[in-house]
Amino acid sequence: MLYTPLVSDLRACLGADNVLSAPSELAVYECDAATVQRVRPTAVIFPRSTGQVVDTVKICNSYCVPVVPRGAGTSLAGGCLPVGGGVVLVLTRMNRILEINLRDRMAVVEAGVQNLRLAQALAGAGYRFAPDPTSQRASTIGGNVATNAGGPHSLKYGSTAQHVLGVEAVLADGSAMRIGPVLGPAGLNLLGLLVGSEGTLGIVTKVWVRLTPCPRNYRTVRAVFHRLEDAAQAAGRILAAGIVPSALELMDHGMLAAVEEAFHFSLPREAGALLMIEVDGLNAGLDQVQSQIEECCRQANASEIHQAKTPAEREDLWQCCKLTAGATGRLCPSYILHDGVAPRSRLPRILQRVAEIGRNRQVRILTVAHAGSGNFHAILPFDEQDRTEVDRAEAAGRELLEECIACGGSISAEHGIGTRKLALMERLWTAAELEAMRRIRESFDPAGLLNTGKLLPNRP
Amino acid sequence: MLYTPLVSDLRACLGADNVLSAPSELAVYECDAATVQRVRPTAVIFPRSTGQVVDTVKICNSYCVPVVPRGAGTSLAGGCLPVGGGVVLVLTRMNRILEINLRDRMAVVEAGVQNLRLAQALAGAGYRFAPDPTSQRASTIGGNVATNAGGPHSLKYGSTAQHVLGVEAVLADGSAMRIGPVLGPAGLNLLGLLVGSEGTLGIVTKVWVRLTPCPRNYRTVRAVFHRLEDAAQAAGRILAAGIVPSALELMDHGMLAAVEEAFHFSLPREAGALLMIEVDGLNAGLDQVQSQIEECCRQANASEIHQAKTPAEREDLWQCCKLTAGATGRLCPSYILHDGVAPRSRLPRILQRVAEIGRNRQVRILTVAHAGSGNFHAILPFDEQDRTEVDRAEAAGRELLEECIACGGSISAEHGIGTRKLALMERLWTAAELEAMRRIRESFDPAGLLNTGKLLPNRP
Repeated sequence: MLYTPLVSDLRACLGADNVLSAPSELAVYECDAATVQRVRPTAVIFPRSTGQVVDTVKICNSYCVPVVPRGAGTSLAGGCLPVGGGVVLVLTRMNRILEINLRDRMAVVEAGVQNLRLAQALAGAGYRFAPDPTSQRASTIGGNVATNAGGPHSLKYGSTAQHVLGVEAVLADGSAMRIGPVLGPAGLNLLGLLVGSEGTLGIVTKVWVRLTPCPRNYRTVRAVFHRLEDAAQAAGRILAAGIVPSALELMDHGMLAAVEEAFHFSLPREAGALLMIEVDGLNAGLDQVQSQIEECCRQANASEIHQAKTPAEREDLWQCCKLTAGATGRLCPSYILHDGVAPRSRLPRILQRVAEIGRNRQVRILTVAHAGSGNFHAILPFDEQDRTEVDRAEAAGRELLEECIACGGSISAEHGIGTRKLALMERLWTAAELEAMRRIRESFDPAGLLNTGKLLPNRP
Repeated sequence: MLYTPLVSDLRACLGADNVLSAPSELAVYECDAATVQRVRPTAVIFPRSTGQVVDTVKICNSYCVPVVPRGAGTSLAGGCLPVGGGVVLVLTRMNRILEINLRDRMAVVEAGVQNLRLAQALAGAGYRFAPDPTSQRASTIGGNVATNAGGPHSLKYGSTAQHVLGVEAVLADGSAMRIGPVLGPAGLNLLGLLVGSEGTLGIVTKVWVRLTPCPRNYRTVRAVFHRLEDAAQAAGRILAAGIVPSALELMDHGMLAAVEEAFHFSLPREAGALLMIEVDGLNAGLDQVQSQIEECCRQANASEIHQAKTPAEREDLWQCCKLTAGATGRLCPSYILHDGVAPRSRLPRILQRVAEIGRNRQVRILTVAHAGSGNFHAILPFDEQDRTEVDRAEAAGRELLEECIACGGSISAEHGIGTRKLALMERLWTAAELEAMRRIRESFDPAGLLNTGKLLPNRP
């Protein structure tokens, strides 16, 4: 078998086992979790240390070949696709938990550690890494950092940026830079810039995460409504009552029907919407808060209210929110998933608009929203074989994100821009803002070889 | 009276009332709250709108004269001094609260609005802008943004960066850029970069702040200890018990004696340390938490424990923490105030080291710490007339910050770098990190005319 000089160099550096270059092996790395786009990498490499990341970036630089970092590949925005060509650098073999320091409430992990594996390692310690993206069974901490991932509980606990104290990153020139752990801000906020930069400023190889105390007690309520507006009104009443839910999830009719069809949670399929509300804190006060929440739901005409009475029941209630991707995957193997954001008071209106867009464009759209923060996920399933259906779904997706921009919201809360939302960046930001971002990127990566073609649109 | 061409242009643009250039008028603007350094500006200007900021930046650019933004002048790090020469641009006449939107939990204010004035405007609404720096009676929201200010309650609620949704800033080229309000992260984190950049990337003129629900109920406990170690141990026990205090303040013997001497709170002057602990949340659970806190203090040999039984008593307990600056000002008109950070588990050790440094260098050092986050403020009073005392205080200040770096901490948590900690930046960061910061700064301000000589040391 013959190798290109680049592949030969990479094999010599990493060992043959850690370099894939045969077309059959590359297929898995052609797409991310959204599967709508396929781009074949030149090679896929699996470094096992920061030193190997350094070496491979230098090798790729010497061939002027882009490097595309990839964690578990759960991106929904094309973030880990080699759209500008190049080598996909997969971090999943850098998966060691290096330190857990409960006294200073900090853990140090390699970027390829799965979010859930850190949670398991901390089980029983009373502490956790708070971000809990829906992908947490698969997604890596490095990927969470790249997209500044959130999750249902980010309403109360914040997203990844609030829980990262430091990173080690390999920069475009092949140097490794360790930023932090930052215990006090001093100088320009490099750390805050790296988090959420989708691998365009550096390849994060190690992360210092903040550990926070696990809530001791929960109350979890699921309420079902005939109409979406009622569910939205209940959410509004809960927040207006001054309650700070740790999570407040809103699922529309289409989504709850899909989940029920796939997994049989005994949800009423004909219901208009479902609300999942969780509060946590000191046991003594929670019963009263739970009563208030239930009262808010009743006043908004809830047709059914369930409470979790045991941890197992809580787990069950959460399953119906966590399996939304699986449920839609069962409907249709392909889908677009957009996360849009509206100012919270506009969320009911934007969800109505999303439904209208679906009707107008004859596209099925299922939504589940982090209602407390105005962030919603719209899933648009389609048949990949039907080109007009693909086009309709793409157009509907674009239109609903444009609605978000028009009402003062955003085109992403936790999935990133990747390639799939690039075209909308010019609607969201002014030319001057984009230019400021480009200049920052160029100050890190003058040749543009790190995750080329992502996050920022090219200069017009 | 004759004016330089620069001053004439500024007067023509802003009106004579909004431009100071006579030596007697400039004196007030020669120093900040720390008073250890005096630098006379070329002129002091008071724009009343973003448009006037734009115009004056352009005028200063045309003369290649630096512009130094200033809020209330409460900086303790020299942040608002014209060390590189130039015009001081004071934002206190841009002091309008432009919008309070409770539905979307957002307020829009001009940069010169005082932190406390926003709090007053929100009184009774049930919402607040959470950061509560000790300077909040005077300091402006723009200044809070410049230094990413915290406050005693940042332990639970985070610092300014977590509560800013957007800014309008005038950049070095005289253009105005509005970033946000950012409801979902998309693109590089310009907002996170501007917050805490101490006016080096842009002059913040308007701020969109997040409003969060006010806690409904508090429990506030003050405990007094014979020994500092005991107070530190009590703090450790409280945190280890999984309690999340909203504030946890530790005052050493010197500080509590100074406060008592100045304001007569009936504190035992001979006590070794004082701990202020506050929790907030749902009423029902708080009594139990308060009992746990008191038990932690008793186990660590507290000699006195007081609880606030009314809001007025709570206010009284807080006064003794908030008047620390006033108390030291009474001891001596001049002082250095450094905020250092240590990993939380090292705080007791670092406070001991600070005391040793004071003894070795014959410098009085008073400390008050946000013990929950490892951040402490060390006040080093001195007699400005006694040059050797000034030198001893400077050296002691430097040594204690070096200790912070050595134990993995930082040289600032909320006061910024300004000019006074510039020399230590090279100890805190690597050359590569500083270079990355410089390149970012240059991408915003190639000529280096915004707050020249601050935040980042010059290239070696």
